Amino acid sequence: MTTKLDIAVVGATGTVGETLVQILEELAFPVATLHLLASMESAGSSVMFASKKLKVREVDSFDFSQVKLAFFATTPAVSRSFAAKAHKAGCAVIDLSGALHDAVAVVPEANPERLGQLPQPALITSPSAGAVALAVALAPLKGLVDIERIQVNACLAVSAQGREAVSELARQTAELLNARPLEPRFFDRQMAFNLLAQVGAPDEQGHTAVERRLVGELRQLLGMPALKISVTCIQVPVFFGDSFSVALQSRRAVDLDAVNRALDSADSIERVEADDYPTPVGDAVGQDVVYVGRVRHGIDEDEQLNLWLTTDNVRKGAALNAVQVAQLLIKHMA
Amino acid sequence: MTTKLDIAVVGATGTVGETLVQILEELAFPVATLHLLASMESAGSSVMFASKKLKVREVDSFDFSQVKLAFFATTPAVSRSFAAKAHKAGCAVIDLSGALHDAVAVVPEANPERLGQLPQPALITSPSAGAVALAVALAPLKGLVDIERIQVNACLAVSAQGREAVSELARQTAELLNARPLEPRFFDRQMAFNLLAQVGAPDEQGHTAVERRLVGELRQLLGMPALKISVTCIQVPVFFGDSFSVALQSRRAVDLDAVNRALDSADSIERVEADDYPTPVGDAVGQDVVYVGRVRHGIDEDEQLNLWLTTDNVRKGAALNAVQVAQLLIKHMA
Repeated sequence: MTTKLDIAVVGATGTVGETLVQILEELAFPVATLHLLASMESAGSSVMFASKKLKVREVDSFDFSQVKLAFFATTPAVSRSFAAKAHKAGCAVIDLSGALHDAVAVVPEANPERLGQLPQPALITSPSAGAVALAVALAPLKGLVDIERIQVNACLAVSAQGREAVSELARQTAELLNARPLEPRFFDRQMAFNLLAQVGAPDEQGHTAVERRLVGELRQLLGMPALKISVTCIQVPVFFGDSFSVALQSRRAVDLDAVNRALDSADSIERVEADDYPTPVGDAVGQDVVYVGRVRHGIDEDEQLNLWLTTDNVRKGAALNAVQVAQLLIKHMA
Repeated sequence: MTTKLDIAVVGATGTVGETLVQILEELAFPVATLHLLASMESAGSSVMFASKKLKVREVDSFDFSQVKLAFFATTPAVSRSFAAKAHKAGCAVIDLSGALHDAVAVVPEANPERLGQLPQPALITSPSAGAVALAVALAPLKGLVDIERIQVNACLAVSAQGREAVSELARQTAELLNARPLEPRFFDRQMAFNLLAQVGAPDEQGHTAVERRLVGELRQLLGMPALKISVTCIQVPVFFGDSFSVALQSRRAVDLDAVNRALDSADSIERVEADDYPTPVGDAVGQDVVYVGRVRHGIDEDEQLNLWLTTDNVRKGAALNAVQVAQLLIKHMA
């Protein structure tokens, strides 16, 4: 029998936090008391859990010594303010913001062994949706493809930026269809029927934080700290579901049959045959797997493996991964 | 003084054909008589040229010996049926469909010298919009970057597939915003707020015709027949304007300052500084240049050069390139 745990979810009113609470219930996670927390603006509202209406309280005044495990589905700023405090209070932390540089990135399909090696209480990052998707898809291929370099173009859905971004895409689209003048608010320009070449501001070298995070996390997850990874993250006019064009450069010819078999035998992967292809809206949204399609060599180049991935960025890419990490983690907890 | 030429435009009622006729007028191309042609279904309508309403006639019954130069802004099937006939009748052909395998791909900014080497009458391909954009952006960098490999993710606008595709994206979007059930017609599934992982059907190796065409043409345009080019072309919910994430792998460290200077001194390139970025809708549409932004090294890798390109796929990527080729070609014509 599993011991039930007292748990906190910080950021319970956000897109990811709300889904996370829902998944705790779906997967019958052994929760004793669930504390839902948020920043001042969102505190006071209610979220349903196990047929009960739970009030969301302010994170500022919460005593983290009451809980054994806390999820931080928050902005980096909120995680930076409270995650270390929670950890010092003896609480295992699973952070989804990417703000905790000492935290270890874990995706159960890629590096579950890391959970047994951590000092308690654990300080864990549930990686960015892109790193989760790539780690899930590439982990089964590590022994098959002698990876020299990974090239990724990530097409990110607006929901990664929260509810305001989702409403803004809808509002902009409606205004354009009704031939009304467009006034961008959340995004700095037209997002509807357009592509934005970057997500967030670039640093001095021209890379955005979301790109650097993806590279750092993927190197950790694959256990290849020096792996060459080139990535461009763009913002696309899609509400939910991230998609990735991936090219793996191998040191030798890639055996496509073996690749397909390895993908097929992975539980968290749904491979789509060449006569079809997966899309974010049609396939990925609401699902617990990473869809993999367009499995092929490079043109005139058998040392290259090309893939197309798509996954629910809020669910599999964030909330579900965090809960799946927690499911493994509690086996290691005192 | 330039001699005026009798010219035919086949496919004059299509998105590209109509723009091509407009550009002939804008650039004061030396036209004597302009013959507008189309397949049976579109013949009979009129197109404005030089303040005159010109009737569009059936291509089937046209005698190509009447003209010295013919543009084929048509489907591959129509080009295959009539371009060789036109060429045999002594007519220089500039084909935009990609169907003529003997034709030489030309982009004036990349390989203008090819026009002087062709047997007359010339048989020329105005390449796919992706190949045009990449050739324009990469030609000035050839001497600076020791290119070993090019990796491209192309996000193609629906207008490349004609007016029906444009209406379909608008119709699907309106239906979704009004919560009506979606019935895909032109595309095989939901295109609004979604990404399609491929444009056209893949061959046995998993590559689409548009991807093979881009690779073949770019190798020709850069004069590097064995260049390794990896490409994924996806369909995005954007009406006009193609965008490209590009990574160039070099054999030595790339000098970013030199790259920026070379891009700045190219007439057909508009470079956008790192504090901003170009988008298809906000920048490229209606313009005669290729926008280049996000110029940067790879993460931890100075041997890689990353770029983001965006261009008007109908204008610069197709119609304008064809007319610019014709402007150079007529200097070589008898």
